[in-house]
Amino acid sequence: SRDFRIGVLAGDGVGPEVTREAVRVLETIAKGFGHSFTFTEGLLGGCAIEAKGTPLPAETWELCESSDALLVGSVGGEQWDSLPADMNPGLGGLLRLRRKLDLYANLRPGLTLLPGESPIRGADVDILLVREATAGLYFSPERDRVVKDGVESAWDTMHYTADEVRRIAVVAFELASARSRRLTSVDKANVLEASKLWRDVVIEVARDFPDVELEHLYVDNCAMQLVLRPNDFDVIVTENLFGDILSDEIAGIIGSLGLLPSASLRSDKFGLYEPVHGAAPDIAGRDLANPAAAILSAAMLLRHSAELEDEAECIERAVSAVLAGGIRTADVARGGPAVGTVGFGDAVVAEL
Amino acid sequence: SRDFRIGVLAGDGVGPEVTREAVRVLETIAKGFGHSFTFTEGLLGGCAIEAKGTPLPAETWELCESSDALLVGSVGGEQWDSLPADMNPGLGGLLRLRRKLDLYANLRPGLTLLPGESPIRGADVDILLVREATAGLYFSPERDRVVKDGVESAWDTMHYTADEVRRIAVVAFELASARSRRLTSVDKANVLEASKLWRDVVIEVARDFPDVELEHLYVDNCAMQLVLRPNDFDVIVTENLFGDILSDEIAGIIGSLGLLPSASLRSDKFGLYEPVHGAAPDIAGRDLANPAAAILSAAMLLRHSAELEDEAECIERAVSAVLAGGIRTADVARGGPAVGTVGFGDAVVAEL
Ligand SMILES: CC(C)[C@H](C(=O)O)[C@@H](O)C(=O)O
Ligand SMILES: CC(C)[C@H](C(=O)O)[C@@H](O)C(=O)O
Repeated sequence: SRDFRIGVLAGDGVGPEVTREAVRVLETIAKGFGHSFTFTEGLLGGCAIEAKGTPLPAETWELCESSDALLVGSVGGEQWDSLPADMNPGLGGLLRLRRKLDLYANLRPGLTLLPGESPIRGADVDILLVREATAGLYFSPERDRVVKDGVESAWDTMHYTADEVRRIAVVAFELASARSRRLTSVDKANVLEASKLWRDVVIEVARDFPDVELEHLYVDNCAMQLVLRPNDFDVIVTENLFGDILSDEIAGIIGSLGLLPSASLRSDKFGLYEPVHGAAPDIAGRDLANPAAAILSAAMLLRHSAELEDEAECIERAVSAVLAGGIRTADVARGGPAVGTVGFGDAVVAEL
Repeated sequence: SRDFRIGVLAGDGVGPEVTREAVRVLETIAKGFGHSFTFTEGLLGGCAIEAKGTPLPAETWELCESSDALLVGSVGGEQWDSLPADMNPGLGGLLRLRRKLDLYANLRPGLTLLPGESPIRGADVDILLVREATAGLYFSPERDRVVKDGVESAWDTMHYTADEVRRIAVVAFELASARSRRLTSVDKANVLEASKLWRDVVIEVARDFPDVELEHLYVDNCAMQLVLRPNDFDVIVTENLFGDILSDEIAGIIGSLGLLPSASLRSDKFGLYEPVHGAAPDIAGRDLANPAAAILSAAMLLRHSAELEDEAECIERAVSAVLAGGIRTADVARGGPAVGTVGFGDAVVAEL
């Protein structure tokens, strides 16, 4: 039996609705398996701007520091789009939080649950993309936009230290060891210095994982191969921006954004868990959103932060069973009968 | 009737074979339409290293400067992979040539000629990707790899001037004007300074093209949307590395790399034309390579450098007709009967 403190940052748009279902699922698991999970809510993103004047209030930060793991909904909405970066729900809220917490390992599993949703013939995908999330172009040590001698220019820096590459490579190799023992490292080592360093360090780390088969792909080639043979990939590790692009491509290949969870981890067991989909303000508050991604994020929380693998699998099986039974929210119902957000949550809870 | 000097840099691997068919097609066009094309051969890439000790010999450079357009095959091969960057057939040969010639507009048309080759259900694509090709991370003003105070690090710079963005935007708007009048500009303006500049300049240029409908997509979202709704895209314009990744993704969506041509242009009519596929040393010299990409590159040469639109369309129609008639090289024959490189060229020539 485990005592576990979960900070809940439901955020904006559909965030609160889908997070509510994920919390219900976790409560049911706690009851069933005899654990004690405490849930404490905090404000993040647009709702925090409205209530506290900042997307990441001090109270939220304290909550994060005193939690064992975080469950996040989604942030953002048109009304905050024109705010400066540090006041932006995404950049100044969620991204800043991930960076402050040093959550360098962004795990994005891409698993085909509904083959009919994929635009690709025969796609049946089980990919775990591991994205470096605290360095690279996103956190340029040098970036600026200037006008000098009448010439306007702007730049960003893709910067990596060997240690930054090493720690994400270790996470990826460990995950690959526990799965099919195949790892694809993606870079642009034929052109970029940062990628040459990346490749050298990945090769060095590989020596400690002789059981894992390592392949290197250039990012352009990887973008092509993912479309041509998506079923062949297992664990993929790559730098921040490449991971941003490739994980969205994988989401497209799977075809149902509403089913994709994610985890943001560091080397201790702390982590932040959230659906890949955004705040979708157009359908917010209407019991239309698909809570599967949030529920599957809760399963990842149990796996990676609470180390409750059986409980995680129990949730994942329940979601699969509900979908296999034909219970679908509108986004994946293909025009057929659909349940609402709460209805889908009910079905998962009943299946646990 | 036109006099036109074409420099032919057939290169390595399958380059010479496929280029030969493209030249034959151009000769047939010249005869049929009463033009005079002169072809002068030069060395580029690995073959130039063997003969002259450098991937881009002075003679080749002179040939380029005295030509109206260049027809290139492909460069590279394992035996030259470990050479330093400036001696590499790709980086020190072809990439350096494109940069020295200031060929900033890389056009990559993605056209579905064989729907059965696409891994995507219902994909019938006609995309023109316009890639900026002389700036960005590829040509970092600041890049290095150092060890300082025991910390190893490496970096590259994504740098753009407003003028560099403007000139590629103008090319893209002009091309969009002449097509369906829809342009998608791809950036990462929510994160990168270079992308914010990119977006601002594209919006500025848009004022001169009120007939073109402009949309902006973030690169991650574009990577997803291309898989989900490939048929909706028309002209796409983006910076160097994003263009590298997305054009390969589009190649995967179309499914047949052997059919994809490309052009590298600057503001006068000079251009370099080459298939997207590489040197494929494993099948070189065996009459197996698909010459369609090279032949379609020759059509682009007529369109963009010689301004012979009718002749270009004549070639494109011939290639389509040959494929539609079931004449295929092995790469797209799906196990059925296949012709060789020369046989395919014969069929196109007969169809002209
Ligand atoms: C919102 C944006 C800054 C973010 C990113 O680029 O990382 C998003 O695309 C993501 O992948 O989480
Ligand atoms: C060979 C490589 C440097 C090149 C690039 O990245 O531009 C290739 O991928 C291309 O797209 O022409």
